[in-house]
Amino acid sequence: MTSTGERPTLATIAEAAGVSLPTVSKVLNGRRDVAPATRERVERLLAEYRYEPASTRRPPRMPERPVVDLVFSALDSPWAVEIIRGVTGDDLDVVVSSMQGTGADAWVSRVCRPGRDGCIVVTSHLPDAHRRRLERAGRPVVVIDPADMPDPDLPSVGATNWAGGLAATDHLIGLGHRRVAVVSGREDLLCSRARVDGFRAALERAGVAVDPDAVRYANFHHDGAFRAVGPLLDLPADRRPTAVFAGSDEQAFGVIEAARLRGLSVPDDLSVVGFDDLPMSRWASPPLTTVRQPLEEMGRHAARMVADMIAGRPLGSLRVELATRLVVRSSTAPPRG
Amino acid sequence: MTSTGERPTLATIAEAAGVSLPTVSKVLNGRRDVAPATRERVERLLAEYRYEPASTRRPPRMPERPVVDLVFSALDSPWAVEIIRGVTGDDLDVVVSSMQGTGADAWVSRVCRPGRDGCIVVTSHLPDAHRRRLERAGRPVVVIDPADMPDPDLPSVGATNWAGGLAATDHLIGLGHRRVAVVSGREDLLCSRARVDGFRAALERAGVAVDPDAVRYANFHHDGAFRAVGPLLDLPADRRPTAVFAGSDEQAFGVIEAARLRGLSVPDDLSVVGFDDLPMSRWASPPLTTVRQPLEEMGRHAARMVADMIAGRPLGSLRVELATRLVVRSSTAPPRG
Repeated sequence: MTSTGERPTLATIAEAAGVSLPTVSKVLNGRRDVAPATRERVERLLAEYRYEPASTRRPPRMPERPVVDLVFSALDSPWAVEIIRGVTGDDLDVVVSSMQGTGADAWVSRVCRPGRDGCIVVTSHLPDAHRRRLERAGRPVVVIDPADMPDPDLPSVGATNWAGGLAATDHLIGLGHRRVAVVSGREDLLCSRARVDGFRAALERAGVAVDPDAVRYANFHHDGAFRAVGPLLDLPADRRPTAVFAGSDEQAFGVIEAARLRGLSVPDDLSVVGFDDLPMSRWASPPLTTVRQPLEEMGRHAARMVADMIAGRPLGSLRVELATRLVVRSSTAPPRG
Repeated sequence: MTSTGERPTLATIAEAAGVSLPTVSKVLNGRRDVAPATRERVERLLAEYRYEPASTRRPPRMPERPVVDLVFSALDSPWAVEIIRGVTGDDLDVVVSSMQGTGADAWVSRVCRPGRDGCIVVTSHLPDAHRRRLERAGRPVVVIDPADMPDPDLPSVGATNWAGGLAATDHLIGLGHRRVAVVSGREDLLCSRARVDGFRAALERAGVAVDPDAVRYANFHHDGAFRAVGPLLDLPADRRPTAVFAGSDEQAFGVIEAARLRGLSVPDDLSVVGFDDLPMSRWASPPLTTVRQPLEEMGRHAARMVADMIAGRPLGSLRVELATRLVVRSSTAPPRG
């Protein structure tokens, strides 16, 4: 037992248990990749030494409100504000920043400074080296909406991309469309792949052949979809798709603009479904049918996860996917004729 | 003179000078509403006592990076992310939060807690009571883009609303429009009034009579403009406006949707100009002609102002209005016929 005033650190526990520091941290964070015997030994020592996690030992400032960094790979999308709204709340102080504009790992140094308790990272890629530095500094990390599927032992929050692609395409098939195209984000991003796979699954289930030429990968932005979909819209009317599922709302707007410039009216000549449900989707003309990603709820969930980890409470599940939902507005209609 | 180790506080200075604490704070913050003789006395004592402002005395944590609260009246608009991008940077830690969801003044208590150095508030109204609490706690405050013109002695950053309204309307007149309508935000918000006054000034300068019925105030959102502009679009073609200047991009989208539902094409039947230049304005179909508010730059400027106040550097100017700029895209064209 440690004497009064000399608080046990994670290192004390690690030494006593004969394990590494990360292993103790894993046990504290409720992670599963620790052998049961080791876990039991560490837990016994944590109790014996009356170890208190950092969050309960930080009386000098705001003990009741952990300080969490919310780091975006870039602050360049209107959906960022949805996530910020979800993460900020009465229980956390949220320091918002971007990985851009500083050295590639300046943000890691910021998050590891004293007075910070953990971080939520909105990025498609968290390099192992960064992850290890955060772990060594005892900063729990949660990843939101990674385009790549993260390591299974890295806490993360995403949305059901495949189910969203399926729902969007089912809706178009239900309206009577058979020549349906898809344009999604880069093929090497798992979230764009998942949306396209949901699209394929819906068509196959309905017995509609998937035209390989009608499956396009681009960047997730307006210009990517605008360019990718042009050649399809230039086809003769009897071969042109009557509907397009776009992998993001921004892409859907690119498709709608490509249609407008060709004199095609949405939804009369072309139905368009997006993915995200940005606030602006309601304001588009026509208002956009789209698959809603619950971005605010994803932020709220990530905040809860990181707060649990800071407090040393075990996480129920390391990977959470929140449900997407089709929102039908006016950019989709039965095909002409 | 104070002995070593016993740092002079603002109260020490106030007592020695025989003035109130807020007066010392005003002098430190470079404010002008202090009599010259008082200012001189206080400045002499600050120098004599070798007073160091709080920001230079806080070595325990992050001395090189002040912690600034960025508080939005609500985190509900895509333009929030533009301001956040401007405020966040390499020099400040920015804690983002919203006034909503907590008690009316919970945010003031947060900002006044130890470890915080100042705040930037994005709101149309900062009650005097809140302002006094922030002042007593020694938290410099800067207001961004207030819809009401703030007290002249409250540091604030806005945009040139009147000049923006003038530029938008000049553009429409230059295209040949004479029946031009305007829909803006609530009449009691000074920023919407300023935009409408710029509109009037442009028409009057061009010798075009302003039809009082063509001046509409609504809320700044999609639904407000959608409803306000409907009766104008329902007029017979020879009395219907051929162009509308909207006080926000969101309002412009409401106007475009109201036109679409009446079978009116933008820009062939109706030209529309917005105000803000949200990212989505580029993605609208047709891409929106609009008045750009330099939101990111406004955020950057507010960050600089609050950092200067924290460091005790005098502000060059308490009220800064950054220039708006017309961005011409595809929602405006000469009138038909």
